[in-house]
Amino acid sequence: MEIEIAKSYGFCFGVKRAIKIAEENPGSSTLGPLIHNNMEIERLERDFNVSLATSLDDVKDGEATVIRTHGIPKEDLRILKEKGGKVIDATCPFVTKPQQIVEQMSEEGYDIVIFGDVNHPEIKGVMSYATGPVYAVLGVDDVEKLHLKERVALVAQTTRKIEIYNQIVNYLVPRHKEVRVFNTICNATFENQDAARDLAQRADVMVVIGGKQSSNTKQLHSICKSFCKDSYHIESESELRREWFEGKKLCGITAGASTPEWIIERIIGKIREFKV
Amino acid sequence: MEIEIAKSYGFCFGVKRAIKIAEENPGSSTLGPLIHNNMEIERLERDFNVSLATSLDDVKDGEATVIRTHGIPKEDLRILKEKGGKVIDATCPFVTKPQQIVEQMSEEGYDIVIFGDVNHPEIKGVMSYATGPVYAVLGVDDVEKLHLKERVALVAQTTRKIEIYNQIVNYLVPRHKEVRVFNTICNATFENQDAARDLAQRADVMVVIGGKQSSNTKQLHSICKSFCKDSYHIESESELRREWFEGKKLCGITAGASTPEWIIERIIGKIREFKV
Repeated sequence: MEIEIAKSYGFCFGVKRAIKIAEENPGSSTLGPLIHNNMEIERLERDFNVSLATSLDDVKDGEATVIRTHGIPKEDLRILKEKGGKVIDATCPFVTKPQQIVEQMSEEGYDIVIFGDVNHPEIKGVMSYATGPVYAVLGVDDVEKLHLKERVALVAQTTRKIEIYNQIVNYLVPRHKEVRVFNTICNATFENQDAARDLAQRADVMVVIGGKQSSNTKQLHSICKSFCKDSYHIESESELRREWFEGKKLCGITAGASTPEWIIERIIGKIREFKV
Repeated sequence: MEIEIAKSYGFCFGVKRAIKIAEENPGSSTLGPLIHNNMEIERLERDFNVSLATSLDDVKDGEATVIRTHGIPKEDLRILKEKGGKVIDATCPFVTKPQQIVEQMSEEGYDIVIFGDVNHPEIKGVMSYATGPVYAVLGVDDVEKLHLKERVALVAQTTRKIEIYNQIVNYLVPRHKEVRVFNTICNATFENQDAARDLAQRADVMVVIGGKQSSNTKQLHSICKSFCKDSYHIESESELRREWFEGKKLCGITAGASTPEWIIERIIGKIREFKV
C-alpha cells in the first residue's frame, strides 16, 4: 500500500519554522508558549533544553530568548534586547510583514486600521509599530465609531476571514480619498482543507490526525469522509487497526493545525509496520 | 415671497469652472464641445468669440485653446503645445487628480486598473498618464480576464457608481498583496438630488429647470414633487405662471446638470417680476 501525505497539513509554515528555530537554539527560552500544544512544549524542554518564559520578567539577564510566531510589541523587544542575551526572532514572516507595513504607512501619514483582536498578541505587536493613529477593529460596527483622516491604510490579522475584511473595505472606500488595502491574511487553514479534499478524492483510506476536541481536525475529518468513506480521525498510533488498510492501494494522511510533526511520523511508521 | 436656490444645482463644479475660463479667454477655441448644450456653446461664440475646434487638426497654429473638463491624452497635449498657441487648461481638478495618481502609481510599479469606459475622453486622458500596465474595466467580468501583478492601484471615472467600484475592490483584495484604492468618484449628481430634497421639504413651491427630455432633471422633479406637491418642471421663463406663486412664502429653485446659469437667472428674474 502506498502512503501519501496531503500537500498541506498540520502546523502552518510559521509554527513549523519557529519550532525548527527553537530546536536549533538549545538552552534558550521561548517568550510565551511557542505553540498551543503541551506535548510539544514538553518535548522541546526534554530534548532541546528549551524552557518557557511566561513573561519578560521571567527572562534572565543574558539568556537567549526565542520570540514566537505571533511577534511581540516594539517596546518589549527593546526591553528584551537590554537584557543582553541573544534575541532569536521566530516571528512568522507573515506577521513581520504587517508590522513593517504599519510602521511605513504611519511614517507616510496614513491613519491605520487593523482588522483583528486588540487583545491578541499578534495585534498588540503589529499595533506597536504605528507612530501615528492606529485602531484595531473586528468589523464595520467598530469602524463606524472612528474618526479617520482622508488617507487610510488597512492591514489584517493573519487568521481573519477575507469576507469581513472586504466589508470593512467597502465601508471605507466611499468615505475616504484613498484606502490602501494590504492583504495580510494567511490561508493556512484553508490550504489544509483544500489539500485534504484533493487527497481524499484519490485515496482508498484516509487517516486524519489531531485532538478529538480540535475543531479544525474534526472539520478535516468531515471533508475527508465526504470523499472517502474509510476516513478515520485518531489522536495517536495506539488507535490504528491493521484491517483499515487491508486491500487498500492508497492511504492518505492529513493532520489538524495543532498536531506536531513527530506524532504524524510515529503514526506513519506504525502504518508501515502493518506491511499491507 | 422669498426665493431660495438649492445648495447644489445645475452644472457641476468642473463645468462651471470651464465656462468661466472660456469666458475669460475671448477669441480662443475649445478642443471639443465644452458642454453638451448647444444654446450655451452658441452663447460663448456670440458673446465671447469662443469657437469650437472639433479635433486637434482643427486647431490653428498659434491659436489659444481651452482644454475642456474631460482633459485630453498626454500625447495630444504635447501636439497642442507644439502648435505654439496658449494652452488654457480647464480640465476639472477631479479629472486631473486621477491623471496624476495614474502617473505616480505607474512610476511606483503598480499595475493600474481604471473603473471606466475605455472610449470615454476622460478615461482616454487618464490612461495616457500610465507608463506601465494599465487597464480600463466596467465591472468584475472585465477584471477576471486580466493578469495583474501583486500590487494593484485602482482609480475610477468621476461619474461611476461606488457600488460597482466596491465589487471590483472585493474581487481584487483576496487575490493581491496590496490594492491601493483611490476614490476619484465625484458625487455632483447626488449632491444636486440631496440639495433638491432638502429644499423641497421647506418650500411651498419648487421650480425645476432643465430640458423636458433630460433624465437627471426629470429625476430632480420627481424628488421635489414627493416633498412639495407644487413642483413645476420648466425649460424657459415663458412657461412660468403667476398663479403658481400667489400666497406662497418660499419658492425653491433647482436645475438639471445641463442647464446653464443664465437660463436659471433669467427665470429667477421673471419670478421676481411677478412681485408676489
